[in-house]
Amino acid sequence: MYVQPFSRAEYEDRLTRVRMAMELAEIDLLWITDPSNMNWLTGYDGWSFYVHQGVLVSHDDYPKFWGRNMDAQGAVLTCWMGEEHCFGYSDELVQTPFAHPMEDLAHRLSVKGARTIGVEMDNYYYSAKAHAVLQANLEGKTLVDVTGLVNWQRTVKSQQELTYMRRAARIVEEMHRHIADTIAPGMRKNDLVAGLYHTGITGADGHGGDYPAIVPLLPTGIEASAPHLTWDDTTLERGAGTFFEIAGCYRRYHVPQCRSVYLGQPPEPFREAEQALLEGLEAGIDAARAGAEAADVAAALSGVFRHHGIEKESRCGYPVGLSYPPDWGERTISFRADDHTILEPGMTFHFMPGLWFDDWGIEITETILIHEEGPAECLAVTPREVVVVD
Amino acid sequence: MYVQPFSRAEYEDRLTRVRMAMELAEIDLLWITDPSNMNWLTGYDGWSFYVHQGVLVSHDDYPKFWGRNMDAQGAVLTCWMGEEHCFGYSDELVQTPFAHPMEDLAHRLSVKGARTIGVEMDNYYYSAKAHAVLQANLEGKTLVDVTGLVNWQRTVKSQQELTYMRRAARIVEEMHRHIADTIAPGMRKNDLVAGLYHTGITGADGHGGDYPAIVPLLPTGIEASAPHLTWDDTTLERGAGTFFEIAGCYRRYHVPQCRSVYLGQPPEPFREAEQALLEGLEAGIDAARAGAEAADVAAALSGVFRHHGIEKESRCGYPVGLSYPPDWGERTISFRADDHTILEPGMTFHFMPGLWFDDWGIEITETILIHEEGPAECLAVTPREVVVVD
Repeated sequence: MYVQPFSRAEYEDRLTRVRMAMELAEIDLLWITDPSNMNWLTGYDGWSFYVHQGVLVSHDDYPKFWGRNMDAQGAVLTCWMGEEHCFGYSDELVQTPFAHPMEDLAHRLSVKGARTIGVEMDNYYYSAKAHAVLQANLEGKTLVDVTGLVNWQRTVKSQQELTYMRRAARIVEEMHRHIADTIAPGMRKNDLVAGLYHTGITGADGHGGDYPAIVPLLPTGIEASAPHLTWDDTTLERGAGTFFEIAGCYRRYHVPQCRSVYLGQPPEPFREAEQALLEGLEAGIDAARAGAEAADVAAALSGVFRHHGIEKESRCGYPVGLSYPPDWGERTISFRADDHTILEPGMTFHFMPGLWFDDWGIEITETILIHEEGPAECLAVTPREVVVVD
Repeated sequence: MYVQPFSRAEYEDRLTRVRMAMELAEIDLLWITDPSNMNWLTGYDGWSFYVHQGVLVSHDDYPKFWGRNMDAQGAVLTCWMGEEHCFGYSDELVQTPFAHPMEDLAHRLSVKGARTIGVEMDNYYYSAKAHAVLQANLEGKTLVDVTGLVNWQRTVKSQQELTYMRRAARIVEEMHRHIADTIAPGMRKNDLVAGLYHTGITGADGHGGDYPAIVPLLPTGIEASAPHLTWDDTTLERGAGTFFEIAGCYRRYHVPQCRSVYLGQPPEPFREAEQALLEGLEAGIDAARAGAEAADVAAALSGVFRHHGIEKESRCGYPVGLSYPPDWGERTISFRADDHTILEPGMTFHFMPGLWFDDWGIEITETILIHEEGPAECLAVTPREVVVVD
């Protein structure tokens, strides 16, 4: 039988935190569609976010799962609230131009006394149409944008969450070991990825791996100037660098980590960029302390970069933990100059210095945990230096 | 160097078809955010759909890619249009409450003379907020919902698309062979999945596999009553059925296929359901002919089901081909009673009879190709009978 990953007490604590945020936002009901937020509050775990679904949170009742009939059954099996709090809509409403599932939801909502309903207007799987249909069918109620309301409650991790992240950390360490052990000129990229998936899902220390919210990103040579390309079945050749942005995942909890590999002898600019990244990582990790600002980490990194004559525009980190495709980030805090969020113990970030130039790129990154005292801890431990295979 | 999967002539033909549909819909510009539609029109292939991005289509100019700066570089590398048609926005606009990327897009659009702009209101990654920001920043222009406009142009596959789907078919055959060869009581589910990924990404006949748009779904026992649960690291036990809904994928083209396995001797109701599915598949495939309606396939299946005393509510098929997470379906035609779309040669569907009961389930499915004459062809050939391992 299915075993929920967290105690009932932990889910209830999360609910309490969300209700306090609802109170501050002055909303009676909260409608969430981000699968990560849904899972965090209810335990729901299924690949059904390609149809309209969500969780309804009120101030005085259990959270309610609402989705396609067949997925309500999946909710009964995976959520903590019990069958009577899982609702399904007819399959006739799925992907048809003649009707919309949100009409069903609006109908269920209209019988409730609530006047102000919070919705995640800029979150995944809440389409422009879903919003329009809900709005058109909810007379006398007001929809308010509360994008990020639940995400912000997720920033500080519980002990149990950290236990899962440490398992994910062991997994990503194995994955990088696999890369260093097997990569060689002449190898097809897809064969390397096949081994990476095998390693990641086999898991580590007796804990099996889950699917990461992003597939392995491993651009080579000029393609490494663009950080989000995936793989094909061409062979790896001497004379180019490849970075591997991958994550270990355990029960939907992620620990991303990126390392770079060079086949052949790295040219001088590659070595210089490596040096800048290594120093920048040290400086950023040292700055990532409880009480510091998110911006301080970015400043520590860009200070080192400037010293190396590098100007970098993009942000260099974001919170990670529980996630579903398409993103393993939590979309709240960013390590960037204008983010003055105070770092707290228990927060976890993907600190990701990457350098993408006109025709090559390099990335070396760590997932870090903020401690009560001292610098952040790197959850996964993998040698940071560029792996050189000649 | 990156090699585009299709000829320039094929991309131009697709563009012509889309422009004809735009003409009929009376729109001057088309804004698409579905990553599958973006790829199909431009070739863009990257895992960047977790930030706002899209493709702009006009009647008289090249399609334009618009996305985050670092992804515009990925577009330069993978799209056919050339660098001057790929536009990026600043990283400062990424996942921040202080500004929205769609303001940048609106600014670029407002200088164009176009008055009526089509948007995919009920498609992935076009959030309610994206629509609201676009609307608020486009004075004197009208946004029109054209959800599915591009998807409908994708239903009939070209010879090159079918070549890729046949490669994906060889891959899914290998994956099912792997399951039949290795599954046994006492095996951890994640170890089976690790082997499945390894097989699928290694590929077949010298063609490496790509990542499918949905992860392997393999619910067991009571969990098979809900079709969209994934896996964990518990062990497979005797006395339960598991179905494997998986796909082979080659250059983003999918061939899904599902088979069921029983560890131990299947009970009578399981065997009866298997029989109904096997007969239903035969009947549906025979009905899936050029000139018939989508509803005819559903009717053929439900006729067999009724004969076996089974009433099934959900739809039993949808088009497949090019796709990105979270769905490998094309979201146009459905095999269901009220869909009267005429089937045409070159259309490809995932015909998916599944039976989900209160505490168990079974699925046996095929990806089919509609021919000029005669019944549909199953693209992947795998024995359909339940694999019994005692």
